[in-house]
Amino acid sequence: MKLSSEEQAALEEARAQSHATRRPTVAALEERLFAPIPCLDHGFVRLVDYMGDDGAIVQAARVSYGKGTRTVNKDRGLIRYLMRHRHTTPLEMCELKLHVKLPIFVARQWIRHRTANVNEMSGRYSVLDREFYMPAPEHLARQSTINNQGRGRVLPAEQAHEVLALLKRDAAQTYASYEQMMGDDIGLARELARMNLPVNLYTQWYWKIDLHNLLHFLSLRADSHAQYEIRVYAEAIGDIVKDWVPSVWEAFQDYRVSGAFLSGPELSVVNRALRGELTEREATIIATMRDNQQRPAAERSKIDFSGTGMSAREWRGLLGRFDLSAARD
Amino acid sequence: MKLSSEEQAALEEARAQSHATRRPTVAALEERLFAPIPCLDHGFVRLVDYMGDDGAIVQAARVSYGKGTRTVNKDRGLIRYLMRHRHTTPLEMCELKLHVKLPIFVARQWIRHRTANVNEMSGRYSVLDREFYMPAPEHLARQSTINNQGRGRVLPAEQAHEVLALLKRDAAQTYASYEQMMGDDIGLARELARMNLPVNLYTQWYWKIDLHNLLHFLSLRADSHAQYEIRVYAEAIGDIVKDWVPSVWEAFQDYRVSGAFLSGPELSVVNRALRGELTEREATIIATMRDNQQRPAAERSKIDFSGTGMSAREWRGLLGRFDLSAARD
Amino acid sequence: MKLSSEEQAALEEARAQSHATRRPTVAALEERLFAPIPCLDHGFVRLVDYMGDDGAIVQAARVSYGKGTRTVNKDRGLIRYLMRHRHTTPLEMCELKLHVKLPIFVARQWIRHRTANVNEMSGRYSVLDREFYMPAPEHLARQSTINNQGRGRVLPAEQAHEVLALLKRDAAQTYASYEQMMGDDIGLARELARMNLPVNLYTQWYWKIDLHNLLHFLSLRADSHAQYEIRVYAEAIGDIVKDWVPSVWEAFQDYRVSGAFLSGPELSVVNRALRGELTEREATIIATMRDNQQRPAAERSKIDFSGTGMSAREWRGLLGRFDLSAARD
Amino acid sequence: MKLSSEEQAALEEARAQSHATRRPTVAALEERLFAPIPCLDHGFVRLVDYMGDDGAIVQAARVSYGKGTRTVNKDRGLIRYLMRHRHTTPLEMCELKLHVKLPIFVARQWIRHRTANVNEMSGRYSVLDREFYMPAPEHLARQSTINNQGRGRVLPAEQAHEVLALLKRDAAQTYASYEQMMGDDIGLARELARMNLPVNLYTQWYWKIDLHNLLHFLSLRADSHAQYEIRVYAEAIGDIVKDWVPSVWEAFQDYRVSGAFLSGPELSVVNRALRGELTEREATIIATMRDNQQRPAAERSKIDFSGTGMSAREWRGLLGRFDLSAARD
Repeated sequence: MKLSSEEQAALEEARAQSHATRRPTVAALEERLFAPIPCLDHGFVRLVDYMGDDGAIVQAARVSYGKGTRTVNKDRGLIRYLMRHRHTTPLEMCELKLHVKLPIFVARQWIRHRTANVNEMSGRYSVLDREFYMPAPEHLARQSTINNQGRGRVLPAEQAHEVLALLKRDAAQTYASYEQMMGDDIGLARELARMNLPVNLYTQWYWKIDLHNLLHFLSLRADSHAQYEIRVYAEAIGDIVKDWVPSVWEAFQDYRVSGAFLSGPELSVVNRALRGELTEREATIIATMRDNQQRPAAERSKIDFSGTGMSAREWRGLLGRFDLSAARD
Repeated sequence: MKLSSEEQAALEEARAQSHATRRPTVAALEERLFAPIPCLDHGFVRLVDYMGDDGAIVQAARVSYGKGTRTVNKDRGLIRYLMRHRHTTPLEMCELKLHVKLPIFVARQWIRHRTANVNEMSGRYSVLDREFYMPAPEHLARQSTINNQGRGRVLPAEQAHEVLALLKRDAAQTYASYEQMMGDDIGLARELARMNLPVNLYTQWYWKIDLHNLLHFLSLRADSHAQYEIRVYAEAIGDIVKDWVPSVWEAFQDYRVSGAFLSGPELSVVNRALRGELTEREATIIATMRDNQQRPAAERSKIDFSGTGMSAREWRGLLGRFDLSAARD
Repeated sequence: MKLSSEEQAALEEARAQSHATRRPTVAALEERLFAPIPCLDHGFVRLVDYMGDDGAIVQAARVSYGKGTRTVNKDRGLIRYLMRHRHTTPLEMCELKLHVKLPIFVARQWIRHRTANVNEMSGRYSVLDREFYMPAPEHLARQSTINNQGRGRVLPAEQAHEVLALLKRDAAQTYASYEQMMGDDIGLARELARMNLPVNLYTQWYWKIDLHNLLHFLSLRADSHAQYEIRVYAEAIGDIVKDWVPSVWEAFQDYRVSGAFLSGPELSVVNRALRGELTEREATIIATMRDNQQRPAAERSKIDFSGTGMSAREWRGLLGRFDLSAARD
Repeated sequence: MKLSSEEQAALEEARAQSHATRRPTVAALEERLFAPIPCLDHGFVRLVDYMGDDGAIVQAARVSYGKGTRTVNKDRGLIRYLMRHRHTTPLEMCELKLHVKLPIFVARQWIRHRTANVNEMSGRYSVLDREFYMPAPEHLARQSTINNQGRGRVLPAEQAHEVLALLKRDAAQTYASYEQMMGDDIGLARELARMNLPVNLYTQWYWKIDLHNLLHFLSLRADSHAQYEIRVYAEAIGDIVKDWVPSVWEAFQDYRVSGAFLSGPELSVVNRALRGELTEREATIIATMRDNQQRPAAERSKIDFSGTGMSAREWRGLLGRFDLSAARD
């Protein structure tokens, strides 16, 4: 990530400001303000503004006349209670504003989160910069054989090289065409010329969102099922949130991230495991799947899941979270 | 619930219509269309329109050119997959429109669900009907001693009688004042006169919502923690949804209603219980809480939960879902 | 409006804080922070927090690395341009948080604005205060004879006195019943007892909204067609906005509040008036309606508007905004 | 636009369905159901489902027990009243569902309308088709010299040819690279390979929206300031809306599309023109700008607008809508 000297100067000027305010401030966020956190090769996330802190949530939950906070411990307890019971409206009382530079294909996933405010730079109005996302070789991976929408093992060096050569060649050529079409000889309208640019081109936007919707964004986009390229941004934002509202972050980890939802059938299996009342069929499935990790998929697929109320995928998920074989031994 | 003869006639005229359509129809909903389902003493929920069915979700998920559905079983599998993985956008492709008559205090909880379309009758424009919610005696209960925002045991008959006498007297008096203020002698504006009416007065609205947001509404409002008076409506709507999109309803039951979210600390306790690795402290807590159901709260409150990473309330919740004592025996 | 000494102390403690921040501050808003602006007899609006200023809009519109502002004049020009062309996304980059105390019937109108964050105190959880809105006599008016949902002339003193006596008696009685039902003898659950309270009881909430949606709220609720009781709040908030983002406020006045939308048929009439090409029929309508202000409605209603493409109401509206008779003289 | 034989068969099968329903139907929409309306070279808009009609708006506005409609004329009057006074909630009671095939750069503008339900096909999951938008030569235009984000005059044939050659070459090459990267030799994950594709590639989605938000979409995207490529879609959707809710469409034309918003300063100028009270300065501006249409911009730019409360651009806009010079002659 490189800023022009103008951009750098603007940023430093902003950081040099200091005003007195009666609003709550968060020292760790003041430190972070305006400074870009690099993401991918040319992108960044930059904290532009924030409203509220842990105390603001307590204040709103109590519809308070003052700060609303009592002891740190009582506040933490209330926040944990709110998070556990999904009383999310007080979390909406905090707001974050970011400046983000990101590849278009990441922006297209990101924008699906509708409860946010966005102002994106416009290719109708401005000439877009010549910056394309080029993955690091260790992030170039094969199509997953298990997951229809994920990646599997990393490409060998030679093939990674081949991919990068193609990406670079096409980026150079499409951008050259873009410039040629807008050049003096042709003078094509910007809104038309840009249609030739690939979705690994970088764009930028201002993005503002409340804390409740931000946590929802993070729970989906910092998740292991999210595409790596958006996860990088979600993790950078997570670091900001951790500094901003530490009690919320702790509760979010305990009650969302490190937890798991069990379906009705799953609850029932775990309870029978605890009571030693698993059926023969269930015990066989558990034992076979545990042993089968070393065996070929063909053999694993012989297991008969019918009548258990759960699919192979659900059994796999359940056994990934609970040590059910232990109960039986 | 009583309809005027005019209302009844309008309703029957609507039910008598029959048109040919290329749109998917759901026989069980056609049967339900326009007919009010009584709720509380004077309220109702009435299906006014619906868009889509189970197949419409599959169709959108596949961005299909036709119906998008394959075999019933494949469709059901896809819907379960979407529900399990919280891929909720295809659920937004179904829409329900209801006409609801409900007490104002119920409407005030209901309206907090923002992602819906609402058209309420206006007390500025119309004279409001003399209809007040009077709870059945079996729903008059004392303040809960455990839950700050719930009810406990049912009132004795004499006290229930006393409450109803007060509610009836005040309803009669406030409505008489309302009429007197708007009468020929005074002629006060309706928008002012209505301010004297209590929140157990009935109002009415048209309410339209997509299936994803409707399920969210139901998961909160048909829940045992919801106030009884709104739960009645949520359950009536649940019956409609069950008829409308049976595969979605089944998946909703399995993956939301009958399931439970376990926090990180809870997952860890259950896993240790399965492995027989609970600590002494944890085993004591479990045993004491199990035995203690018969003992007074004072004694239960002596348990020391510190260092377990979970509060008394969380332990209680966990033991309500899992038979952890069994594991140890 | 009266605060308890505890509330007053909490408020003063909050006002006594001063922190250093790199975020933009607005001196006039810092001065206003936390102090309640009285509204109606017991209500208030209190600024709790704000994010951004005029410059923040320019900054987002330019997707800027620094403050984004240039000269005050250039910024003002850009803001006026955005407002004129309804490019509203940069306005969403400012956010306001208020604590509001308001009658329930006002809250019911207010909550219809869905794009906002709300945390209301709960009558399930807390005992509600004995505070009822009692209109000042000069705001007690008869039902309008023109407008189905408005008020007409003010009530004579005697009738105003009668109305207030009824409102006060019913408020006292319903609140006494509320207390009696929750008292030791009966102990009815709060969530039930509250149903007896009329909608002129005061409630409170925290309300947070972005500037674009706030201006939309103000354009509807500070309008002369809004009910007086909500207009009072909208005007108090307008005063805050004027201090907060003066360039936006000026543009809002010029391009929304003091302007008017002309329909296609209206545009056409005005253009023909400018060219002296009004038809005989139109000229007659204009002259008659101008002269008719003194005549009884019965006579005015004899005018034949058919074929003009506009209804009586639309003609009246147009003549209220344009001096069309002048053109013809 | 070409459909595969499978797509065509699925579509015809859907069109062949006929069910009986009690819901209101609109004959003209039944006729349109499922059939694609071609847009641009490979795109389309296809009506998939609809809820409600003109009557449904009246029904909701009256919170009716039956159809809510009275005479066609009374219904039309109410709809016009709602539109004129921006009482938009009843319009939200109608819903439209479309299947759209569109270039990615159009999708990126479209998705900014947040109050809608969307399900887009995924380049993580599927291989994207080799279909790129190639503008017709008459839509290839130069950058506008007046409007920073628009197009000016059409390119000469030779330059149009040059542009199309570049677009075609780059489309072919980027798609070939896309296939090569996903081919057996490399096997790159789809979610990575797609990053090489330009934004004139076609994508598809299901899109569902209520009528109020749809009209807002149309007022922005069918407007002459919208980019041609999205306007084509907005106009195709407009044709559907016209058939669906003819009274709404008529009112929308009269009160939105063919009308205009006048700012406070503009209202004041028009009124002074009507009264023959324009200032010397204003009369000069009007006369000069009228005569100046033939003169070069340099000369026009000499006009001094200061003190008139309106910018050059605003004067130009006003004179485009009103024949102010006439008033003075």
